[in-house]
Amino acid sequence: MLYKQVDTAVIDGESLPWVPLVPYADNILLKYYKLDPIRGDWIVMMRTPFGVELPRHHHTGTVIVYTIEGKWRYKEHDWVAGPGSIVYETAASSHTFEVVEEGESGYMTTLVQVSGELLFLDEDDKVFASENWKTSLQRYLDYCEANEIEPQDLTAFN
Amino acid sequence: MLYKQVDTAVIDGESLPWVPLVPYADNILLKYYKLDPIRGDWIVMMRTPFGVELPRHHHTGTVIVYTIEGKWRYKEHDWVAGPGSIVYETAASSHTFEVVEEGESGYMTTLVQVSGELLFLDEDDKVFASENWKTSLQRYLDYCEANEIEPQDLTAFN
Amino acid sequence: MLYKQVDTAVIDGESLPWVPLVPYADNILLKYYKLDPIRGDWIVMMRTPFGVELPRHHHTGTVIVYTIEGKWRYKEHDWVAGPGSIVYETAASSHTFEVVEEGESGYMTTLVQVSGELLFLDEDDKVFASENWKTSLQRYLDYCEANEIEPQDLTAFN
Amino acid sequence: MLYKQVDTAVIDGESLPWVPLVPYADNILLKYYKLDPIRGDWIVMMRTPFGVELPRHHHTGTVIVYTIEGKWRYKEHDWVAGPGSIVYETAASSHTFEVVEEGESGYMTTLVQVSGELLFLDEDDKVFASENWKTSLQRYLDYCEANEIEPQDLTAFN
Repeated sequence: MLYKQVDTAVIDGESLPWVPLVPYADNILLKYYKLDPIRGDWIVMMRTPFGVELPRHHHTGTVIVYTIEGKWRYKEHDWVAGPGSIVYETAASSHTFEVVEEGESGYMTTLVQVSGELLFLDEDDKVFASENWKTSLQRYLDYCEANEIEPQDLTAFN
Repeated sequence: MLYKQVDTAVIDGESLPWVPLVPYADNILLKYYKLDPIRGDWIVMMRTPFGVELPRHHHTGTVIVYTIEGKWRYKEHDWVAGPGSIVYETAASSHTFEVVEEGESGYMTTLVQVSGELLFLDEDDKVFASENWKTSLQRYLDYCEANEIEPQDLTAFN
Repeated sequence: MLYKQVDTAVIDGESLPWVPLVPYADNILLKYYKLDPIRGDWIVMMRTPFGVELPRHHHTGTVIVYTIEGKWRYKEHDWVAGPGSIVYETAASSHTFEVVEEGESGYMTTLVQVSGELLFLDEDDKVFASENWKTSLQRYLDYCEANEIEPQDLTAFN
Repeated sequence: MLYKQVDTAVIDGESLPWVPLVPYADNILLKYYKLDPIRGDWIVMMRTPFGVELPRHHHTGTVIVYTIEGKWRYKEHDWVAGPGSIVYETAASSHTFEVVEEGESGYMTTLVQVSGELLFLDEDDKVFASENWKTSLQRYLDYCEANEIEPQDLTAFN
């Protein structure tokens, strides 16, 4: 039975690769920790260099962002998220991500927990791409194969 | 503070209208019970007549369906859901809904709990429409206004 | 990988036994549909005869109750839940269940979705018993074994 | 309507106080970010000095722990969680927390997302205390009052 495969466990960050966000922005790096194939939640660390622009996106569920270093904002809001902050994004909201280019590191790092999908929107508000647990898993597996890394089962709970 | 507005409460089904699923299929009737504006979950009763066809759709989160009367299936699966069954749909799955036309009532009724969005897909797998808590609220409010019904706050928890 | 074991599927109500709520009230019957060993959510149909009394309980997460037949209430609230209603119970609330003894059937039936645990409280508000996915699974497996029923894997998602 | 009070927003960590975990261990410091009064989820940063011992606890839902600095473990498991790791704790699990006393800082820091309640167990597995969104809110409000801090509404989503 499935429950016999389920246990509290650690996922070691150092054992996980930084995967470029191909084909959208290969200088954005993602470290996938967990991809829940039942609920569709995923946990990912994101490292974004200064100067990156991403199209406006729409969230189908909540997103919780903990900022580790650097600052960022959404163009549609008047706040800035800095180190040690939590951004709580509510479902069916849309906004445009922007790095605040302060400091000398040249990038910012966040830990992101997404419930559901991130839909990228074009200028007419049409969905032209989606990110979810399945696209994330495929990107991770492709990266592992191309770099001869033994993939971990990020979809498991044990 | 928000928590003072939160309490366990009943939502009476008889106080809620049957709202047609305009503009997609006005013979499908929806009774919205709860539209969670934070998480994006929504609870809706659906009454579908025989003979309805809906395009293929994609779920961004889980969907849990309790069938009250009648039978239905997804074309992509080999099971049929009848009265008293629960269908548990996992995140990022896509399928095509179909009523199984048995019995004399001429329709089927389900209670559906959606987490996130239902994305309708065209023949090229492009998203051409989405259903979420916001579109559901707008449809409910429009129907109330057109029919001189005092709307309830389906987004509240009290 | 776990995701290969995950798929949208139906759970047929007629294939599931009515399991008495031993050792608390063996005239309350439970039909378990789903016991999520990761998140701790569970879906159960409950058939309660007139005349039953249960101790006050506390919910650690949300509970969503759809009433199929009969009426019930919580002593601490001034509403009654009847057929076709949804009760949305918010986290960390406590209340005392009571059947409203109307109609000739002699019992009431609800479909209940619990997130987390139901803690039974004694008169000093001490927890003396808990119901969760693990106790539910054990009760189901014990009933199956005692009645020579082949158990289904209610903890799986496929 | 409630949805008008809901929006994506930032919670600034520097604006939040470190609240001692009274009455259990006043050298453990908690920074509460979010206390969801509907679902019962809560987000908290925890700073624990070396030498602390906590009784065994039980989780009613999932817990997700991101370790910022230092190392810790559960006595019942053979892994150690260090900086940059994620621990995914599944529902209805019980374990005993322990700081791994390495490094010179003298404490460890984690970001914790709890769904539901943390039940402290005595030697006979009886629940003798519980932590949830309500007890957390009370501790935060008490601390604010005693220290003349204007409390924020950690239960809101805007």
